[in-house]
Amino acid sequence: MSKPSVINIGFCGLGTVGQGVWKHLSGNRALLEARLGSKLELYRVAVRHPAKARGVKIPAGKLTTDPLAVATDPAVHIVCELIGGTTLARDVTLAALAQGKIVVSANKALLCGFGAEIFAAARKGGGHYFFEASVAGGIPIIKALREGLIANRFGRIYGILNGTCNYILTRMEREGISYADALAEAKRLGYAEADESLDVQGWDTAHKAAILAFLAHGVWVKTDQMLVEGITRITQTDIVHAAQLGYGIKLLAVITRNFETNQLFVRVHPTLLPRRLVLASVDGVFNGIAVTGDVAGTTLYIGCGAGQDATASAVIGDIADAVTLLTSGKSVVVPDEAAAIHAGGRQGVQLAPLESVGSRYYLRLEVRDQPGVLAQIATVMARNRVSIESVIQRGNRGPETATLILTTHQSNEQAIRATLAGLAQLDSVLEAPLLLRIGDFDE
Amino acid sequence: MSKPSVINIGFCGLGTVGQGVWKHLSGNRALLEARLGSKLELYRVAVRHPAKARGVKIPAGKLTTDPLAVATDPAVHIVCELIGGTTLARDVTLAALAQGKIVVSANKALLCGFGAEIFAAARKGGGHYFFEASVAGGIPIIKALREGLIANRFGRIYGILNGTCNYILTRMEREGISYADALAEAKRLGYAEADESLDVQGWDTAHKAAILAFLAHGVWVKTDQMLVEGITRITQTDIVHAAQLGYGIKLLAVITRNFETNQLFVRVHPTLLPRRLVLASVDGVFNGIAVTGDVAGTTLYIGCGAGQDATASAVIGDIADAVTLLTSGKSVVVPDEAAAIHAGGRQGVQLAPLESVGSRYYLRLEVRDQPGVLAQIATVMARNRVSIESVIQRGNRGPETATLILTTHQSNEQAIRATLAGLAQLDSVLEAPLLLRIGDFDE
Repeated sequence: MSKPSVINIGFCGLGTVGQGVWKHLSGNRALLEARLGSKLELYRVAVRHPAKARGVKIPAGKLTTDPLAVATDPAVHIVCELIGGTTLARDVTLAALAQGKIVVSANKALLCGFGAEIFAAARKGGGHYFFEASVAGGIPIIKALREGLIANRFGRIYGILNGTCNYILTRMEREGISYADALAEAKRLGYAEADESLDVQGWDTAHKAAILAFLAHGVWVKTDQMLVEGITRITQTDIVHAAQLGYGIKLLAVITRNFETNQLFVRVHPTLLPRRLVLASVDGVFNGIAVTGDVAGTTLYIGCGAGQDATASAVIGDIADAVTLLTSGKSVVVPDEAAAIHAGGRQGVQLAPLESVGSRYYLRLEVRDQPGVLAQIATVMARNRVSIESVIQRGNRGPETATLILTTHQSNEQAIRATLAGLAQLDSVLEAPLLLRIGDFDE
Repeated sequence: MSKPSVINIGFCGLGTVGQGVWKHLSGNRALLEARLGSKLELYRVAVRHPAKARGVKIPAGKLTTDPLAVATDPAVHIVCELIGGTTLARDVTLAALAQGKIVVSANKALLCGFGAEIFAAARKGGGHYFFEASVAGGIPIIKALREGLIANRFGRIYGILNGTCNYILTRMEREGISYADALAEAKRLGYAEADESLDVQGWDTAHKAAILAFLAHGVWVKTDQMLVEGITRITQTDIVHAAQLGYGIKLLAVITRNFETNQLFVRVHPTLLPRRLVLASVDGVFNGIAVTGDVAGTTLYIGCGAGQDATASAVIGDIADAVTLLTSGKSVVVPDEAAAIHAGGRQGVQLAPLESVGSRYYLRLEVRDQPGVLAQIATVMARNRVSIESVIQRGNRGPETATLILTTHQSNEQAIRATLAGLAQLDSVLEAPLLLRIGDFDE
């Protein structure tokens, strides 16, 4: 492609994010053009319902109902895929990449499900796929991992990647309200979808964790290869006891790589995070990521993780990189999967077995309030070599029942799973125990 | 320059930072080469004393005592200027840029003093000047401002940019020790230089603030155009009263731009920062920066701000950008002053007059313990239209003296200066009042 004098940007989809990108690209266009040294043209927009009222005014002549026509329009240099989902979005993406275009997207589900196919299509067609907006909204975390921190091997990355869950947990902690009430509030304020399950069960965080793990280590870890647990079973009892122990509860993605054994592990779970850590004070809809590299040490990135404007900032950052790539012929950013694979030193990397993934644990058990129950529980734990650090028995939830809060010394995922299975067989344990990890991170 | 198959890196200076860069470039070389798709050669090293024992082993054949020979060596593509200072470092930088080389540097003093000359030399010679390591060590803040957040106009940037001062203030707060004792400890641990004045009087922070302001707004603000105050007069009295009011004391750089009036103001001063803000919990030698953009909102960046390894991470990040630039012919990063000038939309930007720069203030006065003193002080303040919010009289420091802690309602720098001048004329005020700003930031 010869170096264009005007960069034509095509939009596929013009929902919340798309309108934000349009609004800010229009509003700050003179500034952006000066920064980039290139003219930008908001060239063509595919929407399902052209007549629908929108927050931004699109000239009628630019509108179409055919996203594939935008994706394959020879005049379009950059395609913003902001449709979402993995069907039409995938068709649009592959069609644009096949023609050597640059696709900019916030679509984490598509990337996680079809990343290998997308990067292969980009390589084959000579196109590129940028996705800064797919993780942590306005925080330029993908650029930091790929470029700013390129000197580093990443032993640990952990973070709060879902604003909905963080909002719910923050409200539960601050207001003393139940999970159900906090969720209802999040829905009322538009922070949670009508169907909240992707968020609260941890899958949205898992998608983002997969992307960060890919960037850092060059492998796509499937969500079914991860440990993924959500926040739906957390109660005020847990919030209060965690606070008494000096912790806040955060839904974290944790990506660890041991460079001695070359083992990688990706997990998503609610975590007791020591209050002294900076990320423990990242509240509400904010996201935060702690990246530990072997050269830079730990650096932290915090900001608004979602929403129209923050996401638009990330999409426009990618458009800017795309513009420079188009006008210079090559990019500073590591452009494709092959490079990312090398990036992690993927050779021989394996998923860590469960017995190598350890932490201290928090267990909440609803039990029969009768003599000998703690002895039974302690026996199961001892059989699995899980050592109890503390036990608190709490006021009864119902007649003849009691709540036990246990914390363990350092153990591992295999031992704790076996423990949970053993506890489930006790008649005195009335429901599946709630298990939380204790995140004793040093930063 | 044709695209080289091996990138030759020359070092001028091999002190703490230089040795860190050498160590990690050597240690992670295979990884870096894979990530970049280029071979790297640590080609030649200029040091003053070749025989000196060092933490890294340099083959004798690579050593020279002539940094200009490295800077002008036709085989060298990238020159790491790690000499420091503004004399020999300037000669080396200009010589390398004149030959179209890429210079990578951590030298904030050189950049602040001679930025215009350096970027002019880069433009003229076809070279480039990269300086990620000049601000906030291992935190890729310069890349974030230039690239990741390119969609944004930056209304406010503030941060903790000097680890020495932050260490001293943290120790004073946590241990209840005096400024002198905390400084002595910082020196003992190597966190403060033998001559600490550049750090504790705010000039190091001012240099870094100038660089951030240049990136965000395209103008070089001289340190004598800034408000610069250090931490040397802060006492336990101030730490304790700030804590009682709900604040920690941090030395901050604050860069504000009003896009209505197109006015810019850069200041460096100890600030009472509300404890609820994330940056208030950035302690010890860590740095932290809060960037408020009109699109992304506020994003925060926290990490180790100095030291061999963190600084090396930043230098190697720049080397990586330089490698891609060399192998592709152009860079994603905004490469020179001209672009940065456009970046800020510099046209017409002016330094804000003092009366437009406001905050609430904290004043500590040592006064004669006699009737009528507070009335005199209040009269001076009223005359200057500075409204008192609270007054605390504290136990006497000596016989017949008292300490007054005042906080004001919102006022401005011109009014508070006039107030200080008026207070200095009162016989009852025994020494120049200590003035601290109250940083009521929303994030």
